Amino acid sequence: MELDTITAISTPMGEGAIAIVRISGDEAITIADRIYKGKKPLKEVESHTINYGYIFDPETEKKIEEVMVSVLLAPRTFTRENMVEVNCHGGIVSVNRILQLILKQGARLAEPGEFTKRAFLNGRIDLSQAEAVMDLIKAKTDRAMNIAMSQVEGKLSKRIQRLRQALLETVAHVEVNIDYPEYDAEEMTLGILKEKATFVKNDIKKLLQTAQQGKILRDGLSTVIIGRPNVGKSSLLNNLVHDNKAIVTDIPGTTRDVIEEYVNVRGVPLRLLDTAGIRETEDIVEKIGVERSRKVVEEAELVLLVLNYNEELSNADEELFKISEGRDRIVIINKTDLPENIDMVKVKYLAGEDPIVTTSLLLDEGVNELEEAIKTLFFEGELEASDLTYVSNSRHIALLNQAYDSVSDALQAIEAGMPVDMVQIDITKTWEILGEVIGDSVHESLIDQLFSQFCLGK
Amino acid sequence: MELDTITAISTPMGEGAIAIVRISGDEAITIADRIYKGKKPLKEVESHTINYGYIFDPETEKKIEEVMVSVLLAPRTFTRENMVEVNCHGGIVSVNRILQLILKQGARLAEPGEFTKRAFLNGRIDLSQAEAVMDLIKAKTDRAMNIAMSQVEGKLSKRIQRLRQALLETVAHVEVNIDYPEYDAEEMTLGILKEKATFVKNDIKKLLQTAQQGKILRDGLSTVIIGRPNVGKSSLLNNLVHDNKAIVTDIPGTTRDVIEEYVNVRGVPLRLLDTAGIRETEDIVEKIGVERSRKVVEEAELVLLVLNYNEELSNADEELFKISEGRDRIVIINKTDLPENIDMVKVKYLAGEDPIVTTSLLLDEGVNELEEAIKTLFFEGELEASDLTYVSNSRHIALLNQAYDSVSDALQAIEAGMPVDMVQIDITKTWEILGEVIGDSVHESLIDQLFSQFCLGK
Repeated sequence: MELDTITAISTPMGEGAIAIVRISGDEAITIADRIYKGKKPLKEVESHTINYGYIFDPETEKKIEEVMVSVLLAPRTFTRENMVEVNCHGGIVSVNRILQLILKQGARLAEPGEFTKRAFLNGRIDLSQAEAVMDLIKAKTDRAMNIAMSQVEGKLSKRIQRLRQALLETVAHVEVNIDYPEYDAEEMTLGILKEKATFVKNDIKKLLQTAQQGKILRDGLSTVIIGRPNVGKSSLLNNLVHDNKAIVTDIPGTTRDVIEEYVNVRGVPLRLLDTAGIRETEDIVEKIGVERSRKVVEEAELVLLVLNYNEELSNADEELFKISEGRDRIVIINKTDLPENIDMVKVKYLAGEDPIVTTSLLLDEGVNELEEAIKTLFFEGELEASDLTYVSNSRHIALLNQAYDSVSDALQAIEAGMPVDMVQIDITKTWEILGEVIGDSVHESLIDQLFSQFCLGK
Repeated sequence: MELDTITAISTPMGEGAIAIVRISGDEAITIADRIYKGKKPLKEVESHTINYGYIFDPETEKKIEEVMVSVLLAPRTFTRENMVEVNCHGGIVSVNRILQLILKQGARLAEPGEFTKRAFLNGRIDLSQAEAVMDLIKAKTDRAMNIAMSQVEGKLSKRIQRLRQALLETVAHVEVNIDYPEYDAEEMTLGILKEKATFVKNDIKKLLQTAQQGKILRDGLSTVIIGRPNVGKSSLLNNLVHDNKAIVTDIPGTTRDVIEEYVNVRGVPLRLLDTAGIRETEDIVEKIGVERSRKVVEEAELVLLVLNYNEELSNADEELFKISEGRDRIVIINKTDLPENIDMVKVKYLAGEDPIVTTSLLLDEGVNELEEAIKTLFFEGELEASDLTYVSNSRHIALLNQAYDSVSDALQAIEAGMPVDMVQIDITKTWEILGEVIGDSVHESLIDQLFSQFCLGK
């Protein structure tokens, strides 16, 4: 495959102690040598060495920066191409100047994810591993990181390959059966087909069982706190944020409109929605509060509905029950430090099967129970079995669902006594769908789109 | 010197392609080996090599991350100590986990600037070079970076050392004269003293002549735009920001209250003050605008006073002239696309010696002239002589001023016919003051304070 030489800044933007500009491709060493002066030219140094020297502007002969340059020769590199990493003092101006010099010497600015894409195109990793690299970077909790890491190592890939292998073997059997009908082994072939297809179906099912949890661990559980003014929504928010380490309170970038607050509640990463709204609407009229809540509840996977222990249930409370009906929901009755005025029987009726937790956020009581309820709602004690291969990526989940349907079709066809070559179509289709997970048979446009979601320099 | 082993994250926080955790000290390799698994233990690899492997948690034996580990053995390192750099996929969680593991194995979290401090304490660089490392990181323009870079390389240090050497030689002469008065070389000694002191004085003067420009290039020129509502302050701001590359529009951090907007106007970095105020006060009553301006003008080094070509001078205009009197100021008469109603004679009288520029920001006219005026006001065409050794750091400037005074005292003493040993006191003092620039004779508390302004991981 003919690929040009690419470059990008690979450390986050901002003032830091170290910044790195990466180059990958056939010309990486030659290009770097044109702007580097050290003890030896880089083309004469060993692979996997770090070389002290200066970057200079070949036009003005001026020294630009003091650097350490790493030389990594193919194929033992991230991209399987020649790579150079220029490690400089971490100033914004300095790292940009070095990047500009490298571009002037003929490298092309890498697209987001292009280094990882090359690792994939050059066969070092498969598609699910490449996707996991990005999950690793974006992981918000240790558990999310563990899932991503095991996927980077290829655990999911191996599982998928095993399934495809099983399908391939049955196809081979069928081929024999079709080519040599005189053997009349159809009966036996159907037996094998059924056995293998059942194995594949069950294994896909097992993988899919991890999907909901995997997805939550990977993406966070979008959570909204609703309630009338002055029931303690802000206190609850603060309690969750302060008790638990806030994972990310600020995503650096150019626009500062969207702030997502993540908290790690007993291993469940909550992505708190509309936190600005909560802080604002504490003293807004009820009507607006309910309207606003209605909109946010639609985006939420978990609703925390807060009521006032000290007040009677109001129409607004009932309205909030209504708009959050059918969602995963926990009802929180706050202010137990004050006398009881709420109708608990009615609350229990309205809450239905949903867990109810009583709290006094003022006295810091009941928060543990709430956190436990959140964990139980989504993980039911299974969270600790961390050796599971979690499927966490929506694309993978969608493909596994398709594969499940397709292999189920095959089994039904067998049951219905359909001819073997008809069954084979479904089996082959399942094999192809599973191939898409690891990138064995995917469109170039899909690949481009997947990698474009990566960060620059990766 | 006995120093423990320190560690820190050396890349800016945020999601990126690469993050680095640095370790420095005697135990660096041993500590890293306890959490690293690769082809060989790190203690067996060569210096300045990059080693592929995994970081694992020694308690759970679990793999944490796929990494490239750089091993750099003393003394050919940044700190002159053994160093390890763990280069991982750039996730926030992942880099923090690795840091935690290293801390658990016995390294101490480095204070801001502590790596560079070690480079200084271990004698690899002097204090002015160490300070320049931070200037390099914080540089907002190419020129600021060039100044910092030449200081990192030791150009200022060499200049200071040359001056100190000259002073030392005169002191030696004086000593001889004092110890062996029978030689009666006092006449000759005074001649040499005068010659050397004059050389030192002139050279310090030359250095100080670069100081104002150096400081502006390093720190940016704090600039405020004032004017009545609706004269075009916002347009001017937008023009400056959009025409010129905004250098930093956002300083990432936890608080988002202070946003400094830098623009690079023909090599002069303007630090625009109160940009939020400008955007707000366009439609605020004049009174408040003037009051607000009064406060900001006090902090500003450059005042851009905007008037309306289409309106008569108002009391508020005259008030703004008054509050910015005595500052470096450029008067901008905007809206030349509309008929002239302003009294230009009066404007010229009020502006005094200050440059006046007429603009139509609507038609994008006059902006070039304004930018030229800004440059001329501070650099008068000297900006291109970039080979100058610029003194840019306030601490250095203050010390050079003291040294200048002290060597002037010595010269006066000679003129006044004071005895040689009296002159010697001033000469020795000058020598000591210059020593503080390069950190030859400074208090530990000052050193601590200087390095505490560094960023983490440097």
